[in-house]
Amino acid sequence: MKTISIGEVDQYDGEEVIIKGWLFNRRSSGGIQFLQIRDGSGIIQGVLKEGSVDSDLFEMALDLKRESSLVVQGEVKRDERAPIGYELEVSDISVQQSVKDDFPITPKEHGPGFLMDHRHLWIRAKGSAPVLRVRHELLQALREFFDREGLIATEGPILTGVSVEGTTTLFETDYFGEDAYLTQSSQLYLEATAAALGEVYWIGPVFRAEKSKTRKHLTEFWMAEAELSWVEHDENLDFQEKMVHYVVNRVVDKRRDELESLGVNTEALVKKVEKPFPRISYKEAIEIVNEAGIDMNTGEDFGAPAETALGDHFDKPVFIEAFPRELKPFYMEPMPNGETVYAADLIAPDGYGELIGGSQRIDDLELLEDRLDEEGLPRDPYEWYLDLRRYGSVPHSGFGLGVERTIAWICNLDHVRETIPFPRQINRIYP
Amino acid sequence: MKTISIGEVDQYDGEEVIIKGWLFNRRSSGGIQFLQIRDGSGIIQGVLKEGSVDSDLFEMALDLKRESSLVVQGEVKRDERAPIGYELEVSDISVQQSVKDDFPITPKEHGPGFLMDHRHLWIRAKGSAPVLRVRHELLQALREFFDREGLIATEGPILTGVSVEGTTTLFETDYFGEDAYLTQSSQLYLEATAAALGEVYWIGPVFRAEKSKTRKHLTEFWMAEAELSWVEHDENLDFQEKMVHYVVNRVVDKRRDELESLGVNTEALVKKVEKPFPRISYKEAIEIVNEAGIDMNTGEDFGAPAETALGDHFDKPVFIEAFPRELKPFYMEPMPNGETVYAADLIAPDGYGELIGGSQRIDDLELLEDRLDEEGLPRDPYEWYLDLRRYGSVPHSGFGLGVERTIAWICNLDHVRETIPFPRQINRIYP
Repeated sequence: MKTISIGEVDQYDGEEVIIKGWLFNRRSSGGIQFLQIRDGSGIIQGVLKEGSVDSDLFEMALDLKRESSLVVQGEVKRDERAPIGYELEVSDISVQQSVKDDFPITPKEHGPGFLMDHRHLWIRAKGSAPVLRVRHELLQALREFFDREGLIATEGPILTGVSVEGTTTLFETDYFGEDAYLTQSSQLYLEATAAALGEVYWIGPVFRAEKSKTRKHLTEFWMAEAELSWVEHDENLDFQEKMVHYVVNRVVDKRRDELESLGVNTEALVKKVEKPFPRISYKEAIEIVNEAGIDMNTGEDFGAPAETALGDHFDKPVFIEAFPRELKPFYMEPMPNGETVYAADLIAPDGYGELIGGSQRIDDLELLEDRLDEEGLPRDPYEWYLDLRRYGSVPHSGFGLGVERTIAWICNLDHVRETIPFPRQINRIYP
Repeated sequence: MKTISIGEVDQYDGEEVIIKGWLFNRRSSGGIQFLQIRDGSGIIQGVLKEGSVDSDLFEMALDLKRESSLVVQGEVKRDERAPIGYELEVSDISVQQSVKDDFPITPKEHGPGFLMDHRHLWIRAKGSAPVLRVRHELLQALREFFDREGLIATEGPILTGVSVEGTTTLFETDYFGEDAYLTQSSQLYLEATAAALGEVYWIGPVFRAEKSKTRKHLTEFWMAEAELSWVEHDENLDFQEKMVHYVVNRVVDKRRDELESLGVNTEALVKKVEKPFPRISYKEAIEIVNEAGIDMNTGEDFGAPAETALGDHFDKPVFIEAFPRELKPFYMEPMPNGETVYAADLIAPDGYGELIGGSQRIDDLELLEDRLDEEGLPRDPYEWYLDLRRYGSVPHSGFGLGVERTIAWICNLDHVRETIPFPRQINRIYP
């Protein structure tokens, strides 16, 4: 007899099969038991009828606790009323492990602290597993997009001697007697590989020892970063726009069931990412924020309420350009006025904040040296980065997309901690 | 006029195009200059004839130093003698940056220290850029394989409170007042996500603060790890064998040019990964090693010479099974004899050593608790891991493939440091 996964039951209508999985939930009604069985690829309802199966089996099944592991044999039956269109008429169950204690995650509401302490079990729940499948799909969609555009996948190191985003939020480690830091971004390294390989990307973990405890921050999170040789500011935004449009459509296509199980209005989501995305200046953005009744002055960064106001105003992703250079890191190309830089943040609708930060990078050696000096950064650890401006410097641009925020936005979640299997927050290193 | 990449010149035979790139190398012969231009996607020879172009242009081009960045206009011409089958008859050059100093990496031999100090530039060289393209392809091939097999991509955290491979080789960091470690493997976490999602994988960076300075070790390296629910030892090996066969063939198909430019005999490589791979016990392996004249006793681990002897003996990847349990971590399933465990290492031919380490994991709670105690490991940080044996434990297996060693083997390289853009070794955190 064939062992199949629940995701492929539609190919076995009317056949007797074996499914290996876990008892997700159950109910009984008179002489019938309905066992929800999950195997990672989906959930199927197994139907056990008194009299149709051995009575010992029927009794035994009544005692099975949630998350018991089972090898279930039965006939796949088409059933329009079933969420996946099929049920399993169970003929036999072999119990791998009969769980002794009640599974800690119950359908009732739990506090976030309890759920986070049980994250290793919580990921099996109805609200969690679909999010992790969406995560898988988003990462695949990003890679697929980059590959189609001819980019080469590459990596920066996690352990570095340099800081990309400022020195106050670095995790440090002793590296055989030297100080090393966990990377905040692979950007500087990708600039080097872009000069070797043309256009490059990486998707990997980055770290910020930020003390902020918000629903948009993790200390360890994943970025999708790209660096594009010979690409200037506007083209950089075109690329990002095309990417967001592509990946959202791809995820909706492939994971419609999961998204709908999470209550996402996929039609509205697809409409929101129709191109083009508005592009407004930092100055215009402040006006919109002020009109929304939020106090904010030139020279300040956008806080969460300001980002929400911008998202509400456009109801789709919006690029904020032309930031004052004091607000941005040293490596960003100044605009002709000298005051603002060729940077852009992509702000999500629905209050999810900054999804992407990007900029054209300075390609002139002297200008870059001056900016390092202005920021009081030492030259030595950046010598290799300066070399990129000595040997065949070209105009180039890049960006980093926050993977967790993008998933939170797509899945319409309250907190980024739900988008990654094992989130790390200021007070959270376990499990 | 169309700007194209060198990788797509075959679509533009006879057309006037623009190529943006870097001057890779050059030679002159009388009234002709041959400019090797690279753009990351390939290298094309640009031909500049005195008299056919403006004389100022011809003179200017004579002064261009290597790695100058150029926008080159010219006609694509079919030429059988050219390595890529085409040349560019140059009509104009616009110089983006004329490099002032000689490019540090010259075609002559450099010492490894010098090359590593200039890694950010070395990656542009003939022996390096193709390796990084092979790396890209191997990672794609692995993902493609896992996806076809129905696995879901997931992640373990980098920052953890637990040790997987022993406590002596951990990088530590202060995590807001708590001790945290950089992960040595995501295995334990993947076991949790496998119970939620069925079969899972991740490809990401892991860390070992090993003081060993060998050609097979980095302190930061990438692993491709998979965990398979309901899979036992033999099936685990079948899966790995299928994977290695698939990815090597895929890389050879897609990157034959790069591999051949590195001197790889692709035909021999493909032959070596024909299935099945031999499977021998630890005991049998020792006999083979001893027969090769290498002193090694039961209870010892295979050193580099022993691994080389095993590779030479079979001239293809070979699984070593049934290791004494004292040699392996606490979580491996004992064999019925109680002395050995259901573990296997896949040893590469040609002296490249261990490519994969894998095992069936203990699924019985008490046995796992006993093994933790035996190893003197504390229970608390592993409570969540023990929970996986309390709630729906199933037989399951997994493995980790060392990405850098696999690339070194495929590309026939002397040292793993050449397989990753910015290698980290005991004395190396820069660039």
